[in-house]
Amino acid sequence: MSAEFMGKDFLLTNETAKILFHEYASKQPIVDYHCHIDPKQIYEDKTFEDIAEIWLGGDHYKWRVMRNNGVQEKYITGDASPFEKFQKWAETVPKLIGNPLYHWTHLELQRYFDIYETLSPETCDIIWKKANEKLRTLSVRNIIKQSNVSVICTTDDPTDDLIWHKKIKEDSQVKFKVLPTFRPDKLLNIESGGFKQYLKELEKVSGKEADNLASLKEIITDRLDYFVDMGCRVSDHALNYVVFKEEANIEEILQKALNDNPLTIEEIETYKTEMLCFLAGLYFDRDIVMQLHYGTVRNVNQKAFDSLGPDTGYDAIWGSANNGKKLGALLNKINSGGKLPKTIVYSLNPCDNAQIETIIGCFQKSEHPGWMQHGSAWWFNDTKQGMEAQITELANMSVLGNFVGMLTDSRSFLSYTRHEYFRRILCNIIGSWVERGEYPNNIDKLGKMVEDICHNNAVSYFNF
Amino acid sequence: MSAEFMGKDFLLTNETAKILFHEYASKQPIVDYHCHIDPKQIYEDKTFEDIAEIWLGGDHYKWRVMRNNGVQEKYITGDASPFEKFQKWAETVPKLIGNPLYHWTHLELQRYFDIYETLSPETCDIIWKKANEKLRTLSVRNIIKQSNVSVICTTDDPTDDLIWHKKIKEDSQVKFKVLPTFRPDKLLNIESGGFKQYLKELEKVSGKEADNLASLKEIITDRLDYFVDMGCRVSDHALNYVVFKEEANIEEILQKALNDNPLTIEEIETYKTEMLCFLAGLYFDRDIVMQLHYGTVRNVNQKAFDSLGPDTGYDAIWGSANNGKKLGALLNKINSGGKLPKTIVYSLNPCDNAQIETIIGCFQKSEHPGWMQHGSAWWFNDTKQGMEAQITELANMSVLGNFVGMLTDSRSFLSYTRHEYFRRILCNIIGSWVERGEYPNNIDKLGKMVEDICHNNAVSYFNF
Amino acid sequence: MSAEFMGKDFLLTNETAKILFHEYASKQPIVDYHCHIDPKQIYEDKTFEDIAEIWLGGDHYKWRVMRNNGVQEKYITGDASPFEKFQKWAETVPKLIGNPLYHWTHLELQRYFDIYETLSPETCDIIWKKANEKLRTLSVRNIIKQSNVSVICTTDDPTDDLIWHKKIKEDSQVKFKVLPTFRPDKLLNIESGGFKQYLKELEKVSGKEADNLASLKEIITDRLDYFVDMGCRVSDHALNYVVFKEEANIEEILQKALNDNPLTIEEIETYKTEMLCFLAGLYFDRDIVMQLHYGTVRNVNQKAFDSLGPDTGYDAIWGSANNGKKLGALLNKINSGGKLPKTIVYSLNPCDNAQIETIIGCFQKSEHPGWMQHGSAWWFNDTKQGMEAQITELANMSVLGNFVGMLTDSRSFLSYTRHEYFRRILCNIIGSWVERGEYPNNIDKLGKMVEDICHNNAVSYFNF
Repeated sequence: MSAEFMGKDFLLTNETAKILFHEYASKQPIVDYHCHIDPKQIYEDKTFEDIAEIWLGGDHYKWRVMRNNGVQEKYITGDASPFEKFQKWAETVPKLIGNPLYHWTHLELQRYFDIYETLSPETCDIIWKKANEKLRTLSVRNIIKQSNVSVICTTDDPTDDLIWHKKIKEDSQVKFKVLPTFRPDKLLNIESGGFKQYLKELEKVSGKEADNLASLKEIITDRLDYFVDMGCRVSDHALNYVVFKEEANIEEILQKALNDNPLTIEEIETYKTEMLCFLAGLYFDRDIVMQLHYGTVRNVNQKAFDSLGPDTGYDAIWGSANNGKKLGALLNKINSGGKLPKTIVYSLNPCDNAQIETIIGCFQKSEHPGWMQHGSAWWFNDTKQGMEAQITELANMSVLGNFVGMLTDSRSFLSYTRHEYFRRILCNIIGSWVERGEYPNNIDKLGKMVEDICHNNAVSYFNF
Repeated sequence: MSAEFMGKDFLLTNETAKILFHEYASKQPIVDYHCHIDPKQIYEDKTFEDIAEIWLGGDHYKWRVMRNNGVQEKYITGDASPFEKFQKWAETVPKLIGNPLYHWTHLELQRYFDIYETLSPETCDIIWKKANEKLRTLSVRNIIKQSNVSVICTTDDPTDDLIWHKKIKEDSQVKFKVLPTFRPDKLLNIESGGFKQYLKELEKVSGKEADNLASLKEIITDRLDYFVDMGCRVSDHALNYVVFKEEANIEEILQKALNDNPLTIEEIETYKTEMLCFLAGLYFDRDIVMQLHYGTVRNVNQKAFDSLGPDTGYDAIWGSANNGKKLGALLNKINSGGKLPKTIVYSLNPCDNAQIETIIGCFQKSEHPGWMQHGSAWWFNDTKQGMEAQITELANMSVLGNFVGMLTDSRSFLSYTRHEYFRRILCNIIGSWVERGEYPNNIDKLGKMVEDICHNNAVSYFNF
Repeated sequence: MSAEFMGKDFLLTNETAKILFHEYASKQPIVDYHCHIDPKQIYEDKTFEDIAEIWLGGDHYKWRVMRNNGVQEKYITGDASPFEKFQKWAETVPKLIGNPLYHWTHLELQRYFDIYETLSPETCDIIWKKANEKLRTLSVRNIIKQSNVSVICTTDDPTDDLIWHKKIKEDSQVKFKVLPTFRPDKLLNIESGGFKQYLKELEKVSGKEADNLASLKEIITDRLDYFVDMGCRVSDHALNYVVFKEEANIEEILQKALNDNPLTIEEIETYKTEMLCFLAGLYFDRDIVMQLHYGTVRNVNQKAFDSLGPDTGYDAIWGSANNGKKLGALLNKINSGGKLPKTIVYSLNPCDNAQIETIIGCFQKSEHPGWMQHGSAWWFNDTKQGMEAQITELANMSVLGNFVGMLTDSRSFLSYTRHEYFRRILCNIIGSWVERGEYPNNIDKLGKMVEDICHNNAVSYFNF
């Protein structure tokens, strides 16, 4: 007998899993410690014109599969009407069997819009109508409250004044936390055309000169302290690949960049290594978690980049070559200095899973269980199979009971259902092990473990 | 209860899968858009002496496992009698549990010879006798007709006169299409000892001088046009690894090769990059699909190569190092020129699956759904697990509904059962998702999707 | 219905698997052809003070997960009392859901201590008491006998006098074989600070000068012959990555090392390549199996290395970059010399599985089935999923029926249960295939195949 399509027990293939999900996992508040939503929209409690805006406005996951389906750019990022874009999306969805977008789409329709039809050309009109009606009352804050979210960590540049975080903090009606994340990618990307301009912005926000390494470090320390004052508990670094290059005159490299002299790859990597180690020390001193994301090739399609810019669906997975060994060397350098912060490592290449488990296993510390973490399956791997692979490898080679669990990494307020998706998958894996006799069937203890992975571990780890 | 050995519902573990396979997939004609069979044998409607000839004559998949089983070369490629070779094969087969050769062998025995015993030393004699008897009536055309094959794309060198394709075309009794595939590997392999000789052959077939880049390009354009006239819809390139090297004087490199001056690796890669980009443009203009196969180490065993030559079972999977990034760069260069043809990418390294999905996702075009394709699990990966992995990753990261599906890649006329094998696996995966409530159980729509992947998508994509 | 926790049919999910395990696999003696136990302890028939000694004394697998769980080093390798260390282990165990240590721990409690409670803070005291009581009668020889072990291959340096092997051989009460393994890592590690000292030890044990390549080779040949006299059937090499570098003056490189001149990476790799090829020839002449282990980054955490030394839980998986191609080249060089010994290849990177199958498939020889072997899932991969992946890939691309099966690779006498773990997993995979109709349900033949993989193949391959 076929199970009901995305019914109550969606993804729960055994009885233990059902109990673990319904009685334990689903009741936990959501701690979304990594996302890309706009705090201004939270403060202003934004509402949305239509479902095209909230669904298709900035979601390059959807754009990619629409392009795969032969949809013209006009209907993706172009000037077609919202309804036309929605129609193209509705045409694409039925072909997405086995794709997480299929599940995310219908989880969002079910949970936020009370719509149980599946999206297709046949249901396009009715769903457009129903969803838009519902959207009138679905303000950002309502979505967050309804999703039982207790903490949101946005992603912010060190130059950000965090004005919206401040306003939210001062608004007594907001019962959940909205905290900034310190993401100094532009400081590290010394090879970028915008680097000097970025230093100017740092000078502006800090009132200090950023013309040498010492002053630059001073400014960035100040900015981090400001973020910490505003509640920041976590930082983030996006690296295309892991850098590790030592022993060179960083000041000299910085001056070359400031004087528009071209840098060698070695110089770029040396500067980044130094900056990462410096920042890691700052994080350690303030008990800020460091996130490292790597394994991406950005803007693979130059023509598309020229017309649409970055983050429009033209990134891919980098090869896994030397990242592991360099990650070990980088963490070792930081650790040798005595200031290795809590760290979460994510690679976009799913072949890196086992390697990451074994490398972080070399740097665990007694100050907190799971000091070093392998982050939840990321981006292209944020699929049922990808999550199963990450959870299984983590359990095999590390300690699943100490895992800090899921994040949305999303630009959309409707993505909290990804936590539900993760929790169902987690409970199903654990339930399967239990029912096969691979772990004792003590539901209280299992329930506690599930609650920890879904919520408590993150609260304790990030010190929310 | 144990299921019947390779019975009616072989590989179909759920009811939806059974319906999808029996009612939809199995009824589709076979479009075998990539294989290595000899068109002459089709034209002449060859029959076979015995089952050793058709099974063991050129099948290096079987040779490898026979060598693994300690069989002497005499009984593999040597001068033992056909029956002795068949005996050695029969001894090897029972040990092949979990190997696709076990399933292929028995699918072929069942479908073409009506033999339901399993091959082993005990059944060797009787199967030898039964099969050889049946072979008298199993001519090549009969096999093709019985297999419901509508299109066969052979693999051909640009110098080929395609005489057998022409004869087949003119033979009104042949109801299926036999089309040439343009595979200019010898033109790209400038580092090969045979390169200059190959240019001579091109000169001979074209009547033009191939002594400079421009004329070489002219000749190759003419040859492609000739292939297109003969019905060619697809090209193929075998690269050990993906090359991408720009900005050099190609003419100079070519002249060095013509004057027997040794080339550097960089020069070889530059020449190949240029030629690939040039050819891609030609393909685009003629709507010819480009296939790229990479990730192989050829002729790993020099001693065996010296005695047996290439394609005798001594190739292996290359590491996955930098192929992904170079593939992105190569496709980007072609795309920047505005002439990126429909492209199917295959890597021999199964770890590349996810990377390939994400790279091709950066180059989709609105001219046709699934413009860029991740090819079906190739060669060593053409196993149940390999196909499940490729189909799942494709569904996860691309759009399964647009997949062009299976090919045999075979030298044998009995390999059409590999399409059946693929279809069963595909239906089983889809059926499992449906029965677990991960996709709606609408059998008409599911059946249509299965038909598309098994047949319609390929017909539309290749424009057969 | 949930299965009993680690009951009689643990890991056996189908009826065929149960028959295969209980009637065939479980009855086979254990041939442990690769481990790290101390032969002195066998000779002296050591007993253990308490379960902390035998469990936590040298097991860096356990140390790693304890560190992950925030346990202080004092309770891991430090001066806490045995019971305190055991308490910390008991606190860690419940979090290890999905980790092989969870299963190994309870298999060992069940099989050797007759304890069926699960280890946790609640049961810590009672298990400590019960286990220690039992340990009084659980001498090393009793454990080995009770485990039905017929052959043990220890791991030994060429300088070892093998005195304990000799004594065991002369002890008529020892009915099982304890054979040395020739592991000349220190001879190969020319870049190590201890290299010259090691040559001095070789001089001492051999009475010959080790001051040039010829004499060094002579000494090592003598040592191998001594090992062979003592029953050695197998050698072992641990390489961080596969080396392949040819055509240089090895004598010159050796003299540089002897004169404390720093070597280049190329020189180090050239020396190692030469030595590996030389040793392979010696192995071939004596029908000694060569094991190659690669894919490790050692001592990733320098601080921990400084305080605890090697083999304390700070190693990790190396990237898979060029190992495959170099492995092919190395085997080819050895094979071209006509003296490729039986070889078992292991990589620590699970992504190398498919590549290894295809490379060893290029060097099979008719002298023995499965001349070239892909070793059982190693170290971090010695998990249920890791073993399933290795077995499946092996079956897919090589010949499962010729596999030499499992080894413990352990420092502990309680690890023979890992063979049981492997056998259950093997039987379950085979049983699943059979019950799905993918292989004929002939229990006699299946039972024979299982017995071969669990025992007979290894006996025949190693010539025990």
